[in-house]
Amino acid sequence: MEHPWFQRLRRIKQLGLSHFVYPGAMHTRFSHALGAMHLMGMAIDSLRSKGVEISLEEDEALCIAILLHDIGHGPFSHALENALIKKVHHERVGLAIMNKLNRHFQGRLDLAIQIFLNQYSRKFMHQLVSSQLDIDRMDYLTRDSFFTGVNEGIIGYDRLLKMMSVKDDQLVWEEKGIHSIEKFILSRSIMYWQVYMHKTVLSAEFLIIDLLKRAQELVDAGHDLPASPMLKWFMEHQPDDDTLENDPEVLNKFLMLDDSDVLVSCKMWISHSDPTLRCLANKLLDRDLHQVILSNQPISPLNLEKWKKSVEEMNAEVITSYLFATGMVENDVYNPAKGAIKILQKDGRIVDFAEVSTHMRHLLEEKNVVKHYVYLPKGCASS
Amino acid sequence: MEHPWFQRLRRIKQLGLSHFVYPGAMHTRFSHALGAMHLMGMAIDSLRSKGVEISLEEDEALCIAILLHDIGHGPFSHALENALIKKVHHERVGLAIMNKLNRHFQGRLDLAIQIFLNQYSRKFMHQLVSSQLDIDRMDYLTRDSFFTGVNEGIIGYDRLLKMMSVKDDQLVWEEKGIHSIEKFILSRSIMYWQVYMHKTVLSAEFLIIDLLKRAQELVDAGHDLPASPMLKWFMEHQPDDDTLENDPEVLNKFLMLDDSDVLVSCKMWISHSDPTLRCLANKLLDRDLHQVILSNQPISPLNLEKWKKSVEEMNAEVITSYLFATGMVENDVYNPAKGAIKILQKDGRIVDFAEVSTHMRHLLEEKNVVKHYVYLPKGCASS
Amino acid sequence: MEHPWFQRLRRIKQLGLSHFVYPGAMHTRFSHALGAMHLMGMAIDSLRSKGVEISLEEDEALCIAILLHDIGHGPFSHALENALIKKVHHERVGLAIMNKLNRHFQGRLDLAIQIFLNQYSRKFMHQLVSSQLDIDRMDYLTRDSFFTGVNEGIIGYDRLLKMMSVKDDQLVWEEKGIHSIEKFILSRSIMYWQVYMHKTVLSAEFLIIDLLKRAQELVDAGHDLPASPMLKWFMEHQPDDDTLENDPEVLNKFLMLDDSDVLVSCKMWISHSDPTLRCLANKLLDRDLHQVILSNQPISPLNLEKWKKSVEEMNAEVITSYLFATGMVENDVYNPAKGAIKILQKDGRIVDFAEVSTHMRHLLEEKNVVKHYVYLPKGCASS
Amino acid sequence: MEHPWFQRLRRIKQLGLSHFVYPGAMHTRFSHALGAMHLMGMAIDSLRSKGVEISLEEDEALCIAILLHDIGHGPFSHALENALIKKVHHERVGLAIMNKLNRHFQGRLDLAIQIFLNQYSRKFMHQLVSSQLDIDRMDYLTRDSFFTGVNEGIIGYDRLLKMMSVKDDQLVWEEKGIHSIEKFILSRSIMYWQVYMHKTVLSAEFLIIDLLKRAQELVDAGHDLPASPMLKWFMEHQPDDDTLENDPEVLNKFLMLDDSDVLVSCKMWISHSDPTLRCLANKLLDRDLHQVILSNQPISPLNLEKWKKSVEEMNAEVITSYLFATGMVENDVYNPAKGAIKILQKDGRIVDFAEVSTHMRHLLEEKNVVKHYVYLPKGCASS
Repeated sequence: MEHPWFQRLRRIKQLGLSHFVYPGAMHTRFSHALGAMHLMGMAIDSLRSKGVEISLEEDEALCIAILLHDIGHGPFSHALENALIKKVHHERVGLAIMNKLNRHFQGRLDLAIQIFLNQYSRKFMHQLVSSQLDIDRMDYLTRDSFFTGVNEGIIGYDRLLKMMSVKDDQLVWEEKGIHSIEKFILSRSIMYWQVYMHKTVLSAEFLIIDLLKRAQELVDAGHDLPASPMLKWFMEHQPDDDTLENDPEVLNKFLMLDDSDVLVSCKMWISHSDPTLRCLANKLLDRDLHQVILSNQPISPLNLEKWKKSVEEMNAEVITSYLFATGMVENDVYNPAKGAIKILQKDGRIVDFAEVSTHMRHLLEEKNVVKHYVYLPKGCASS
Repeated sequence: MEHPWFQRLRRIKQLGLSHFVYPGAMHTRFSHALGAMHLMGMAIDSLRSKGVEISLEEDEALCIAILLHDIGHGPFSHALENALIKKVHHERVGLAIMNKLNRHFQGRLDLAIQIFLNQYSRKFMHQLVSSQLDIDRMDYLTRDSFFTGVNEGIIGYDRLLKMMSVKDDQLVWEEKGIHSIEKFILSRSIMYWQVYMHKTVLSAEFLIIDLLKRAQELVDAGHDLPASPMLKWFMEHQPDDDTLENDPEVLNKFLMLDDSDVLVSCKMWISHSDPTLRCLANKLLDRDLHQVILSNQPISPLNLEKWKKSVEEMNAEVITSYLFATGMVENDVYNPAKGAIKILQKDGRIVDFAEVSTHMRHLLEEKNVVKHYVYLPKGCASS
Repeated sequence: MEHPWFQRLRRIKQLGLSHFVYPGAMHTRFSHALGAMHLMGMAIDSLRSKGVEISLEEDEALCIAILLHDIGHGPFSHALENALIKKVHHERVGLAIMNKLNRHFQGRLDLAIQIFLNQYSRKFMHQLVSSQLDIDRMDYLTRDSFFTGVNEGIIGYDRLLKMMSVKDDQLVWEEKGIHSIEKFILSRSIMYWQVYMHKTVLSAEFLIIDLLKRAQELVDAGHDLPASPMLKWFMEHQPDDDTLENDPEVLNKFLMLDDSDVLVSCKMWISHSDPTLRCLANKLLDRDLHQVILSNQPISPLNLEKWKKSVEEMNAEVITSYLFATGMVENDVYNPAKGAIKILQKDGRIVDFAEVSTHMRHLLEEKNVVKHYVYLPKGCASS
Repeated sequence: MEHPWFQRLRRIKQLGLSHFVYPGAMHTRFSHALGAMHLMGMAIDSLRSKGVEISLEEDEALCIAILLHDIGHGPFSHALENALIKKVHHERVGLAIMNKLNRHFQGRLDLAIQIFLNQYSRKFMHQLVSSQLDIDRMDYLTRDSFFTGVNEGIIGYDRLLKMMSVKDDQLVWEEKGIHSIEKFILSRSIMYWQVYMHKTVLSAEFLIIDLLKRAQELVDAGHDLPASPMLKWFMEHQPDDDTLENDPEVLNKFLMLDDSDVLVSCKMWISHSDPTLRCLANKLLDRDLHQVILSNQPISPLNLEKWKKSVEEMNAEVITSYLFATGMVENDVYNPAKGAIKILQKDGRIVDFAEVSTHMRHLLEEKNVVKHYVYLPKGCASS
């Protein structure tokens, strides 16, 4: 935990730019990792109290696995992966870091990595780390609710942990905990729309993606763009997953990146000669965000056409595609296809959660909720 | 509020014998009435802030209506109405008390009574007092969660109140409040099974009903049963709704009844010569409760037969029907047929909640959850 | 815990009539006893984690001792002891009950009773049960704050328990916990004046004492006063500590008394022929309380004389001494003379809390805070 | 509030490096300013409800004054002022910003600035913004407690605000609020030692001061030190309060500084050729902190000598004064000399808080608590 690579997570906010909407949401990936490890300890206690045997070695491996599950994330992770370091994925980075740490600690992370990759024989352990109702989700829902102040998102993780059990090597939940799981799903749904997919949060995310995309375009076109040295290296080298694994330099550079590089670079760009880059950098720095319109139905092509024209007219200098966009966002709250939450009934049978839930049976057949969005400067949609 | 008839509610617990399971659940109908009035004030503020005009007279009437909505309840209300004062109903008592108070205050309660009886022209006011999502339910869910410590039952009443509006003279809820309503329904469902229909709570309620029923039987058979004077009067006179309205004495006697009469009487019966009465009184006093088995499926007649026989053999002195019972309990969480919760969409249209809810669409067609129970002394079901 | 004598505590409110001011304060001595036992378990864990050896037998004895520490309390304890059952003290009753239970359980309570009476060789165990900073106080301050809603009274019992240790067979507190102890003392002080000695709470207590005193006077004068059978027995027999120990009947009768006897009896007295009894009973039932004036200085004899005359004139029928009283109340927040709270310094030395506290040094010399009161019907002090 | 200069506070953490100890303490000066403004609104409501007239213009000015009271702070304010931008003070910066904003808004901030500078005729308004018990302290104590999780530091600001009043143009507190003020003082004291002066927090602050000091030394000695452009400008120009006021460029540069500049610069220095700078930068980045020993007594010169020698021996490359330091820290919890908290007694007289407080009388005479510290690498004090 005191390793510099883990301390780096102190400098990466868990929720990126969500603090533009919820000013308290400054919490870091570091605190999430610590919190998840704490919950893992509680989960292990709970399982042991029900007779599930977990050795000291497995105990340590589970704690390491959850502690490191997000170690591969960079600053503003989505933005980075969508725009700038497109060819490197946080899962691959995470694995590379774990492997390197494992070599450093002479194989002590072997079991943790097996669990993480679902290669360990006792399958329920991977489910604790990663499944539809895992320790990761329990911690981040609790933490994100707390720091945003969205009380509707609070889940009762203590009761959930008490309802947890293992049967036939899979994670199961006692029947009397069904309501708590329903509440978990509902809270997740609430957090999706009130925080993760909040209109203004989406707008800020689009902005930072566009900013980094434009910066990369300028570098690709041969401009000597000022930036923080760490970010500059990535823009100029554009490593991919393969170079990451073969060239130790790449990983070392990655481990030096954090939120501050993006911020300082952004401040360097506010008086740049490129009107598009300058415009986006100023907007991000001063929180001067675009409008996002969310709709359950597709937005009429006529309106889209009209609005786009208005955007073009009012912002002649800036490339339109950085000001106007449209698309869909999706709310993947619970997907039995990816591995159902299993309920252990009093008679010993195991059934899928959605089959026995009074309120969530619909999750069996229904699809994800999809919303359509338009993203454009304020004032352009009313014309 | 300082009127003795209202102060009486200080001596009547909101949740009867639930404190046998949740020791903190000692809160009274008095505090529920005060709390509901407080929420009504917040609701009125919220509606006014959205342009709904509510006169000072209506404001007062709404507060009185919600303050007095439970004024007709007696001690251990269900037990009393099921067993002892079978011919008087708490709604009728409530109305009689309101009318009497109205005469006392020279007509100042006219409007409150109209709203209470849904005879006032502005229909949404009655919906505030009594509907599928009313101030009454908001307060008692919050209060019962708090005092039982069942945190899963907590609702976010402040957000619900902010989402409230009025359109076409009916109470509506803004679209963005749908998740809060889903959470309200889910909380209600949780409270049903974890508190109101908890096995041990049911067992205690069956016991007190049986105790009072047996006491009444003995009085009806001509025994001179000792009891608190207030309770004794009712057992001997057996008034009904009509005598209640015509004979002012009946109402006065009723207004003297509270939880303490039942407790003191129970203590008088623990050494009575009737074995059944004595048995039930001792069990209630010492919290020596029967077992309740709850099941989603009907219980097999074979088992029922076997268990009943076992009960009879082990308790020769006591009348079997006071020791063994079977039946169904029902969870009426949300019933659109009784008046749907109405959602006000952004485009101004009003739709039923269940139609637009992601998670609760099933409430449209599905029936109430029904469970089957057996009630019998401990140890008799295992034989 | 399932013993009827312990279940009796379910029917005795911890704070008597304080719910007249704080409607939520309906919690019982039963929940306090359970809560204190829970904290005792935490304390034992904390001490063991610091190397203090506590055997399984001692563990059980400590839990029993704290569970039963209040078992001798009757309903409205102060009122009862001051007015009606004057010759029986709750400590003696408590001991009698413990001894009887001990016989019943064939000596299994021996050690618990020794600890309770401070006769056990390991003195720190008694200090856990009863001292200036014991488990009893920690639980009731927390509980009373919670149920009254007086948040200022909340203490951080979890941190206090972690700071706890044992040195030289006495309970000590680590130096870094001093601020938590200061907060404990301050909270206790706040609870004294905002709850336990609140003007209206005092007024209600004076009223119930007077009511029971008058009832006893009438019985002593040979009147056949109606009352609940359990209360009546005590008024007629007036047992004392000696008869309590020698006559098993007395203890059995005492164990049948609870809050409901006082309430039912009060309702029987509201139309009694004695004007004083009738007046007091009506006031109690309808929460029609007298005024209490609290003052840091003695109240001027001139005013007292004038007010008393006014009381007499306005209430000719009622005996004046039941309407008008004066005296002092005292706030005994922390009294080093009764056994100081001991601080374990980093260098291993043990010092008195007040000596090393930045904020509470004054507790070393200062006396208790004393306030003067007058108690009289509303409207009489203004004349 | 949407002004870029105010948005800048989003990028400056309220508690600097305290998150090294309390990982949740990532909250910003932005959220503190917003929160304080919210409390100011509540305070104004409270005062108005007691008949204190506050015009709409004064209302706005008070809100602006509290919103901007910290606008002049830079990143890691203490470190910056102690090390790098030594000749510019945050109060002067704050005033310069307010004046500039005032010109921008054509004088609309006139009254706010008068209140801030205590030049407005109604003196109590300045006391709301800045005094021993002001809105600033109420917000930051609450906020810092919440985000660090140090629950002992929580104050009951709602009750404090209700107790607030104005008499003879000064802010006073009703007598019955004395306990709440005592709790406020105690909480402040707790926060001092558990957060603001926590050993590890002090260690981190010493480190960042030293790092910036060494960087400036190298620049002063003519080295071309890499750094974020914004920080570099300050290191090379070293403006003072006078140039700040006369050269608009200076203020504009200052307004571009935030936490990210320090972090990015620190990352640039971890492989610098100067061993001292390199050492300090690595320690800060990886949270590899020195030890701080706090003591109530002065530390013995013999030990200091011995430890210093040990530091020198073990770290030959690094300048010793950056590794070893000694001094005092002081806890200025409440200082009546700077303007006592005034209590309004029931008889209308105004007295100093410490005179009438039961628990805090000692504050009248006593001096601040002072502690002595040594700061040195781990392992060097044990030798």
